[in-house]
Parts: sequence; structure tokens; C-alpha cells
Amino acid sequence: MKPIKVGLLGLGTVGTGVVRIVEGHQEDLQWQTGSIIEIERILVQDHSKERSIPVDIDKLTEDPWEVIGHPEIDVIVEVMGGVEHTKDYVLAALEKGKHIVTANKDLMALYGREIMEKASRHGCDVFYEASVAGGIPIIRTLIEGFSSDRITKIMGIVNGTTNYILSKMSAEGAAYEDVLKEAQQLGYAEADPTSDVEGLDAARKMTILSTLGFHAGIELFDVKVKGISEVTKEDIAYSKQLGYEVKLLGIAEQQEGYIAVSVQPTMVKKSHPLSSVNGVFNAVYVYGEAVGETMFFGPGAGEMPTATSVVADLVAVVRNHNLNINGRRTASPYKEKKLKTDDQIVYKSFILLHVDDEAGVLSQITQVFAKYGVSLESVLQHSNPSNPKAEIIIITHDADQASLNKVLKEFENLSVIEEIKSVYRVEG
Amino acid sequence: MKPIKVGLLGLGTVGTGVVRIVEGHQEDLQWQTGSIIEIERILVQDHSKERSIPVDIDKLTEDPWEVIGHPEIDVIVEVMGGVEHTKDYVLAALEKGKHIVTANKDLMALYGREIMEKASRHGCDVFYEASVAGGIPIIRTLIEGFSSDRITKIMGIVNGTTNYILSKMSAEGAAYEDVLKEAQQLGYAEADPTSDVEGLDAARKMTILSTLGFHAGIELFDVKVKGISEVTKEDIAYSKQLGYEVKLLGIAEQQEGYIAVSVQPTMVKKSHPLSSVNGVFNAVYVYGEAVGETMFFGPGAGEMPTATSVVADLVAVVRNHNLNINGRRTASPYKEKKLKTDDQIVYKSFILLHVDDEAGVLSQITQVFAKYGVSLESVLQHSNPSNPKAEIIIITHDADQASLNKVLKEFENLSVIEEIKSVYRVEG
Repeated sequence: MKPIKVGLLGLGTVGTGVVRIVEGHQEDLQWQTGSIIEIERILVQDHSKERSIPVDIDKLTEDPWEVIGHPEIDVIVEVMGGVEHTKDYVLAALEKGKHIVTANKDLMALYGREIMEKASRHGCDVFYEASVAGGIPIIRTLIEGFSSDRITKIMGIVNGTTNYILSKMSAEGAAYEDVLKEAQQLGYAEADPTSDVEGLDAARKMTILSTLGFHAGIELFDVKVKGISEVTKEDIAYSKQLGYEVKLLGIAEQQEGYIAVSVQPTMVKKSHPLSSVNGVFNAVYVYGEAVGETMFFGPGAGEMPTATSVVADLVAVVRNHNLNINGRRTASPYKEKKLKTDDQIVYKSFILLHVDDEAGVLSQITQVFAKYGVSLESVLQHSNPSNPKAEIIIITHDADQASLNKVLKEFENLSVIEEIKSVYRVEG
Repeated sequence: MKPIKVGLLGLGTVGTGVVRIVEGHQEDLQWQTGSIIEIERILVQDHSKERSIPVDIDKLTEDPWEVIGHPEIDVIVEVMGGVEHTKDYVLAALEKGKHIVTANKDLMALYGREIMEKASRHGCDVFYEASVAGGIPIIRTLIEGFSSDRITKIMGIVNGTTNYILSKMSAEGAAYEDVLKEAQQLGYAEADPTSDVEGLDAARKMTILSTLGFHAGIELFDVKVKGISEVTKEDIAYSKQLGYEVKLLGIAEQQEGYIAVSVQPTMVKKSHPLSSVNGVFNAVYVYGEAVGETMFFGPGAGEMPTATSVVADLVAVVRNHNLNINGRRTASPYKEKKLKTDDQIVYKSFILLHVDDEAGVLSQITQVFAKYGVSLESVLQHSNPSNPKAEIIIITHDADQASLNKVLKEFENLSVIEEIKSVYRVEG
């Protein structure tokens, strides 16, 4: 049988892992697929750079078209990152009938639909398991494992950087800025951490997961996003006292075809399996009407975990190739996108207020909740002898977001409230 | 397109769930597969029995051959359980070119090879996702998700009954017999609980998982099995004090092609994700050389979770049918089975001894460990003023099983040791 030839775009961390696995597991891969898999050309930025693995220098090129246009290459493995150029390369490769394996969540979140449409016209596979939650095969699980079920909720810890920061803040009572600095020194956070800490990276991943889970084309701008940069060590201390951990959760929900997707720091009850996912690990919790609660846990990034998912996709392309069914096992959205309005999005909230420490304050506050039909699970008041301001901690029962927003709006104009210190969604 | 016709063997708990999903999700399933799926005939034990779902009585039959031999039926969904008759039905159906979806771990653990061989000769699919860990798509994950990796360890909480019992013993400090009785009353344990509590059910599931994970044909008699009936509340109390939970773990390990599979009550460190899997939930922890640590958590049994997996397999059969590739996506073992000998199986142990409370005892005991090269992580001695016997609690470092067995053998003849009270494998 003719070997399957691969063109690799990028030889950074993940690309290096891909080479390691494809070369190191050659015999296993041949058993698994029935084919020999050969890396034919590799696009690099600098031809002469020293590499941590032995690579045949003749295979390296700085010209993307030498890879994309190579007549013998069957599959393009895109692990270079970036969006605009990368999209052009991927679309051009599809036009030449080459299958795509990509680890690029930005590309798939922004241009997934266009890419999948082009793939379908050219009979090509496009697989992107590594784009969400690194080594966890969550995309396959949504497409194949839960094909029979109706998924109503997907909650994900899908960004390792923020989970590292929040876990560390929780374990050590440390402040956000200090832990971020440490994470940058350790290489867990980028010099410009915006995309991670402001929740954009997680939002892109939730776009992909919710599209697959709910079969409707969710787009990045459908996702409401709030990052972790305002999470204080006091918030975390309170949450722990009350039996919660603060996690940056992507939450995608669907009821009767109406969908809401958001990313925000969330207080997760300690009995919930997501609460104990710490450090750079990722986890995706999936609730299906029939299956109930499930959770998938593993490394969210890193050279070898991500490469595992990339090469698993490559194995799938080769298996499809040998069955002559490339481009025919697709998971396209078949449902109309209907987004929930704020009055359809329902959850519990934690609210921390700084108020005047005087009689009647609590009564004024609870009246506002009552006015908008938001009922309360618990109310705690902390007074501090050295401070004329008191703290009130409220956990609501399930309430719709529209009503909650009205409550918070009215709080802004309530003179006894000095400050709405923090508001968190509560889960579990 | 012609509808796909299904013959259902069994209309008990899982069968009822399958009917609910196939009929309730008809439109989604059609989008997912491109076909209408119709249940054509259902084998029941008693035609006239009342059912919890509306079923067309004309579809029911007490004659298996009316289902298996039905000329229009494409797929047999086997959810009747049992082994000998069931095997005959499944093999006969395969001979008639019908694909098989089964939830039957006993059948697959005992006759999986024979069934897969017959399926391959007749170009049929055989899928059995529901046979292990109910609603968790772990079989797909091993076959597809980790196709590129080398799995070195699979640890599973794959029996809900025993996990319920051990979780309850741990949470309440209750005795085994009392919790077993309660589990029987609640329907979580059978009247004859042997298969669950003695680890046989878990062993069958580990046979399936290790065969898929290590690509070698592991058989039931390759699995060393010990159940939970000797776990005492004292053992659990000690394990908790030391930071462990006792779980019935299936453990399958592979190093350099040598495999060991066992099922035994195991002390799992509280920081390990398996330690917090409680009640009837199941979880499978998979360690791959490249991916590292992953864990998959969900319901291990129950009508709807199990039916979710069965119907997901049915979707896979129909997708394959429409791509004309039935019988061509198989995962057959391609490696020679090589089992580890006792000196290749290495782990930490917890040992609880009752000894004479006198000087020099500890020295005699530690000399035996030293003689066989077993080094110790910790040794604790508890004396009790009202008791002339003392307790010694030992946790070893990693040691091979052959050496450990020699130590325990010598302990039996050591006069200062009154009793080897308990021995547990330690993980995490």
C-alpha cells in the first residue's frame, strides 16, 4: 500500500511532538491504520534553527506553498497557529484535495464554517480534536459518544493558564497579580496574557464545543465573556468558606433548542467534579438528558498531550482514506441557531456588597430582590468593629439573568450600598 | 432512503431505554445518520406483560428466531444479558449478515474473540460500548481517541455496586455487611451479590478494556481478582487517617509489551482523581506515555445512561451502513499476549499487622522486609493499654509482588506476629 504523506505546517512545541509520535510509533500506527505514515515536508520559520529532535534538513522549507502545493502530500497537519495566513493555507490545501488536521482553536472558532464547507465540496476531512482541551478526546466524544443523546449543558475548564492561576490563588491565598507574574515566569502564562485571562481563549473553545454539542452554528460573538482579572483573594476566601471553588468556566446550555454560551469566573460547589480540577489540567463536564452527568479530565496543553490528539486525528484521516470515505464523516450543524434571551438564562448567584452598617439596610436590600422575584438561599452579614461599613454576602436561588440585572441596577442607586463588590455565577 | 430496521433482544431496563431513545429522538437520529431507524421486532420473555412504555404488541415475540431470522432486520441490539443462549443468537445473527450492538460484558469478555472473528468473516459490525462503564464512551476513547498513544495504565472504578458500598462505608464508618444489606434493599446490589462484590464483574470489564488499550487478547483468566467482602471498617478508618480512600480498582498495566491485569480493593490517595468518585458512579483513568493522565467519569449503569451508549453504537452502525463500510472499522488485537510475572508487577502496599507488644518486634519485622529488598515509606505502631497486642501499619515503597509475597509468607511463620490483618495495594 502507498504510504500516506503528511505536510506539517509548523515545527514548534506541538509540531515537534507530532514528529516524535509519528516517527516513534511508526509500527503501531501501521497496525492501527494499515498504512505507513511519512512526514514529507515541514514548514518552518527558520530553516537553520537548531531542533530538539533529529529532522532531515531536506524536509524543511520556509515556503508554505512547497508544503501545500506538494503533489504527493495527502494530509496537511497545521500546528503553526495564527489565523489569517493560516486560513489561506488551509483553504488552499483543501482546494488541492488535501485533508486537514489542525490544533488551531482560533482558526476553527472564527472560520470553522467556511473551512468545513470547502472541505465538503472537495471531499476532504477536517479534524480538530487538539483545538479544545489538548489531550482530552472531547470532540470525538460529542460527535460519536453522545450522538444518541440530547446534551443540555456543557461546562468546561478549558484554559489551563487561568485554572493554574485560580488554583494557586485558592491553595495559597495569593493575589491575582502575584500569581500571574509567577505563571509568566514559569511559562504557564504569556507575556501578554490578555487572551487567556480575559476569557477569549476559553470563549473560542466553547464556540467549538457548543456547536458540536447542540448542532447549531454558534459563533464567537454569541459568547458572553468575562475574564478572571477582577477575581480577588477575598472573593476566593469567601467562596471557600461557603464550600465553593472559583473556576473560569465556559458554560453552554440548551433547553428546547434555545442556547446560551458564556465564559465567566464561577463559584463551583466543592461536591461538583469540576471543583477539584486543579493546575493546568482541563476538564469538560457534559450533561445529557439520557446519560446524566459525565466528565472528561486531562491535560489541556503541552507538547505531547496535544500531539496525541493531532496524531489521533491523523490516524482517523488515514483510516478514512483506506476505506475511501474521506470527507463523508462530518458533523455539520443542522439546527437553527436560537439564542436565549436574558430572561431565559437561569442560575444561582453570589453577591458581595459593602453597605452602611446601620439598622434597616438588610430590609432595603431584600426588598429589591423581592420586587424582581429573586428569592434568596442565604444572606450573611459581617460587621467589622474597625470599619463603619459592613459586608453582606448573598446567595440567590435560581433566578433569570434579566431579573438579576434589574436588581443590580437598582442597587447602584441605593444609597445604603456603598459598593457592589463582586457578583459570581454559582454552579453545582 | 430505506429505513434501517432493528431487532431488539430483550425489553428489560436497558431495552426499554433503547426504545425510548430511538422513538423519542427519531428526528435527531435521522439528522445524525441520514436514515430512519425503526424497531421492527422485540424478543420478550412474556408477551402479555405490562410495559412502562407503549409498545406495538405485534412487534413483540417470545421466539428469538423471529427476530434473528427476520429478513428485513439489519441490526440486532442485544440487551437481554446471559451468555450461552445469547452467544448462539449473536453468532446466528452474524451468519445472517446482521450487525450487532450489545451491552453484554459477560458475552464480550468470554466470547469476544469468537464473535469478532465471525463478524469479520460476514462483513458485520459488532459494537459494545455499553458493556463497560455504562454511559461513559470509554471504548471509543481507547479505540479512536488514544489511537496514537501508548497506554501504560488503565485504572477503573467499573462496578457501581461495590463503589456504592465502599463509598457508604467510608462516609458513614459502617460495616460491610450492613451496607450490603442496605444496597440490596435499594436495588443497587443483587440478592446474590457474588459477581459484583467478589470482583468478577469488574474483571470482565477489565478484560475488555485491557484488550483494547494494549492491543493484545487478554482473557478473563488472565485477571487476578480479589473482591471487597473482607474490607473492614477498621481498614477504611486507617486508610482515611493516612489520606487514602479504599476503592475496588481494576488495574491494567503494560510496560514494554508485558501486561498485568488485576482487580482488588486498593487504597487510592485522596489527591488522585479516582478517590473522589463516589456512589454508583464509574470512572476510568487512563495513562498514556504521550498524553499523561486522563480520566473519564459518568454513570456506570441505569436504564438511560446504558441506553445512550447502545443507541450511540446503533448510530455508528447506521453511519457505517450508509458509507458502505460495515465490518471494516474493527479494533482487533495485533500484539502477542505477554503477561508480567510477579517480579515484574510493582506497586506500593499497605500492611496492617497485629503483633506482640514487646521490645524488638519492630526490628524483627523490618529485617524481613530488608531481607527481600522491600523498602518502607512509613511504619506506625499503635499500642493499646487495654490490649496486649499492638498494631503495626506499614506502607512500603514500590516493590515487586514476588518479593512482597515472600515477606508475607515469612510473616506467617514469625512468632511475634499474631495476624496479618490486611494487605492493600496502594495507588496515587
